[in-house]
Amino acid sequence: MKENLDDRQECLKEILEKNQKRAELPKYIDRIIGLYNRDGRFHHILPESIPSKEAIVDIIGRTLKIIYPGYFTSERLDEVKIQYYFGQKVTELFDTLSEQVTLAIRHDCLRFNRPCVYCEEKGQEIALQFIGAIPEIQLMLSKDVRAAYEGDPASCHFDDIIFCYPGLYAISVYRIAHWLHIHEVPLIPRIMTEYAHSLTGIDIHPGVEIGESFFIDHGTGVVIGETTKIGNRVRIYQGVTLGALSLSKEEVESLRRKKRHPTIEDDVIIYANATILGGNTVIGARSVIGGNVWLTESIPPDTEVFLKKPELIVKKIKDAFK
Amino acid sequence: MKENLDDRQECLKEILEKNQKRAELPKYIDRIIGLYNRDGRFHHILPESIPSKEAIVDIIGRTLKIIYPGYFTSERLDEVKIQYYFGQKVTELFDTLSEQVTLAIRHDCLRFNRPCVYCEEKGQEIALQFIGAIPEIQLMLSKDVRAAYEGDPASCHFDDIIFCYPGLYAISVYRIAHWLHIHEVPLIPRIMTEYAHSLTGIDIHPGVEIGESFFIDHGTGVVIGETTKIGNRVRIYQGVTLGALSLSKEEVESLRRKKRHPTIEDDVIIYANATILGGNTVIGARSVIGGNVWLTESIPPDTEVFLKKPELIVKKIKDAFK
Amino acid sequence: MKENLDDRQECLKEILEKNQKRAELPKYIDRIIGLYNRDGRFHHILPESIPSKEAIVDIIGRTLKIIYPGYFTSERLDEVKIQYYFGQKVTELFDTLSEQVTLAIRHDCLRFNRPCVYCEEKGQEIALQFIGAIPEIQLMLSKDVRAAYEGDPASCHFDDIIFCYPGLYAISVYRIAHWLHIHEVPLIPRIMTEYAHSLTGIDIHPGVEIGESFFIDHGTGVVIGETTKIGNRVRIYQGVTLGALSLSKEEVESLRRKKRHPTIEDDVIIYANATILGGNTVIGARSVIGGNVWLTESIPPDTEVFLKKPELIVKKIKDAFK
Repeated sequence: MKENLDDRQECLKEILEKNQKRAELPKYIDRIIGLYNRDGRFHHILPESIPSKEAIVDIIGRTLKIIYPGYFTSERLDEVKIQYYFGQKVTELFDTLSEQVTLAIRHDCLRFNRPCVYCEEKGQEIALQFIGAIPEIQLMLSKDVRAAYEGDPASCHFDDIIFCYPGLYAISVYRIAHWLHIHEVPLIPRIMTEYAHSLTGIDIHPGVEIGESFFIDHGTGVVIGETTKIGNRVRIYQGVTLGALSLSKEEVESLRRKKRHPTIEDDVIIYANATILGGNTVIGARSVIGGNVWLTESIPPDTEVFLKKPELIVKKIKDAFK
Repeated sequence: MKENLDDRQECLKEILEKNQKRAELPKYIDRIIGLYNRDGRFHHILPESIPSKEAIVDIIGRTLKIIYPGYFTSERLDEVKIQYYFGQKVTELFDTLSEQVTLAIRHDCLRFNRPCVYCEEKGQEIALQFIGAIPEIQLMLSKDVRAAYEGDPASCHFDDIIFCYPGLYAISVYRIAHWLHIHEVPLIPRIMTEYAHSLTGIDIHPGVEIGESFFIDHGTGVVIGETTKIGNRVRIYQGVTLGALSLSKEEVESLRRKKRHPTIEDDVIIYANATILGGNTVIGARSVIGGNVWLTESIPPDTEVFLKKPELIVKKIKDAFK
Repeated sequence: MKENLDDRQECLKEILEKNQKRAELPKYIDRIIGLYNRDGRFHHILPESIPSKEAIVDIIGRTLKIIYPGYFTSERLDEVKIQYYFGQKVTELFDTLSEQVTLAIRHDCLRFNRPCVYCEEKGQEIALQFIGAIPEIQLMLSKDVRAAYEGDPASCHFDDIIFCYPGLYAISVYRIAHWLHIHEVPLIPRIMTEYAHSLTGIDIHPGVEIGESFFIDHGTGVVIGETTKIGNRVRIYQGVTLGALSLSKEEVESLRRKKRHPTIEDDVIIYANATILGGNTVIGARSVIGGNVWLTESIPPDTEVFLKKPELIVKKIKDAFK
């Protein structure tokens, strides 16, 4: 395109132009440097590292490789190899997890000017305890897999569920994050569940308490708030909100850490897009909540709640143009 | 920070501590090894590999690069280069796809103790057929692109739609997965559509039948169940559920593989968050279903269905504090 | 497995078979080459590159590293290092952004056969202006972080919000994309917001106008259409649609680029799954729209709008089997 002299001059002009623009960069950079910590802007310029999102995503992956051995690996695993496999995976998990937990605790400590020795010790202690808890988490999740199989007529094999059901993924990450949450690890549990949220559209706060054999079908749009309690063998569908009642700004402040979300007892089914709100709302055992139902009050056990058929306006389209 | 002797001792103590914790790992690893296949826990420790999620995601990407040539590549493509481009991309796709289909079929075969020779042959046969079907899939998708342009006043160029509309992405992956589904490839189709679900919030089961010129706008929260049938030129919006009626556990079992989801005829429009349920529910051609409508019964052709305006409680906020 | 002669012959047969299938590839490739630009199929085989999705995702990441310094990096940043950090990050951002903006503008120019010199100049000019605007975007976003803290009783630290709140991520990407949108950069803004949509389930068109201190809680399923206007200190929840009224195909064409979406004034709160539609719909300042409300008309300031409690059918489950 630039074969003749005119074009070459054009080209030269262009290069100079480019350098001219680039030459203006330092003044803009200085402005950014001068302002990054002013007027309430947020920064995290501190001598200590903070937990790394990538490392935490990595921890999720490593843990799932241990909990569902052979599913998320291209390695061919057999009975002989399996002990080396676990040895390697668990050791790697210990190293990454203890480092990130240490950073997360230190990140909290910095606010109190505590020395960091205990953070590292505590990070390792928690990582070790977590690894000790894996068989229990694994057992809980095996019941969730079975609950998914029993609840979904489209599933034809357990492997499908483990491989690709978003509900099982969200519950798996929640059970890992919840363990860390109740062991008072800061920051990491929420990063984990928000990562699962971004992959599945299912938003479970790590503080939620959930019993055995939990099944979420489809799942997009599910929101389960921080102080929700869910019993055993509960099944919920896409778009279900277990949330808080509306709040003024003063109420937000006074309610931090209080029970603001509902209690769902054993064997309850909640169909798509139902909304259940409030810290005093209890859905009694074995009750069934229909699709689109909106509830702010308790429901006794063994009760069906459905929306009265909404009145529809049905008319021939041709009529509309008469 | 650890300049003086005290600090060095502290540091040494720390390292020993660390090794002490790490030294405890083997007993935890032994426990995990001892339990991974007990009490109903799931594992996939078999001499044969299983399909790899990454490889399947890779197959989606490779197929889209062939279906929409020049869109998802940083290579500069022109008329001369294009035949080498297709040659290379298609060969790579054949190799990856035939390998993964083989693994998926073998994964099924293992349950019947069949020898694996036929699996590999069948894997290649299907990969070849799939490549032969690409021009047809491409043609279908070009009609979907056009339907998106015609349905969305915010779109200003076909390129926008191909580049970044989540609806088109979900439909593209669905059409690929559906081809594999009707050719009885196990596992892979569902992994594909669930991957698209995680990126778009649009959950289309690979078993669904969808006609030409399908458009999904925005899309988050859309659920289209396994046995749904959708005609030509249908348009749907975010949050639409085409689902099954509520089921008891016995019904789940008896309904596996039966028609449980609705039929949507040609030229129907379904607005945001409408829910249409049941295997016998038919929405007649050219009908329009309004936002938030909840339907479990059939609607004749050429019919508009809207929600009767819900009664709202509207009051001055000041009144609330009087 | 293939130790004896029979098996070796089987193995040999298999390899030949494989090559036989592979040998059929060229005829399929020829068919794809012959058809890729026929019958309305889409392709982008042009001598000029088009913007790259990966590069644009990269630009988002680089910009966030500058706007929230120290949060999304594993580098340990302190007061001394920070100026080198900004120098390097900003220069890299300038280079990538100016290249992609150039490609996006050129992609538009190609339709008019304009020479590409001005595209490159304009790309650099815009990249430089964007970098100049970073402190203002940063200031806006610091107010959004604060609004999230004040609006959510589950948040316990600003860092949580920056690290993992999907609402803040979607707003951050929107503010970047909106700047590019009003500076008439084609294609890139929409690719950016659709990327955020895929990660968060929050679909904000880059053309939307949003004031200060905006907070989206949970967020999955939120749709904010192209011509929506949102004032200061507005708070919205998951599943909220700010959309257009239903359109015929002719209306779609006539409404491209006109105001089709609502106006939300200062200090409004809109609870989960509410739907507000239409270009003439104005929600007055300080009003509160309840969950699941469906509105196509304006609401005066200082007004609460709630759904009349829907009639529910509540019955003992045992009754159902009598």
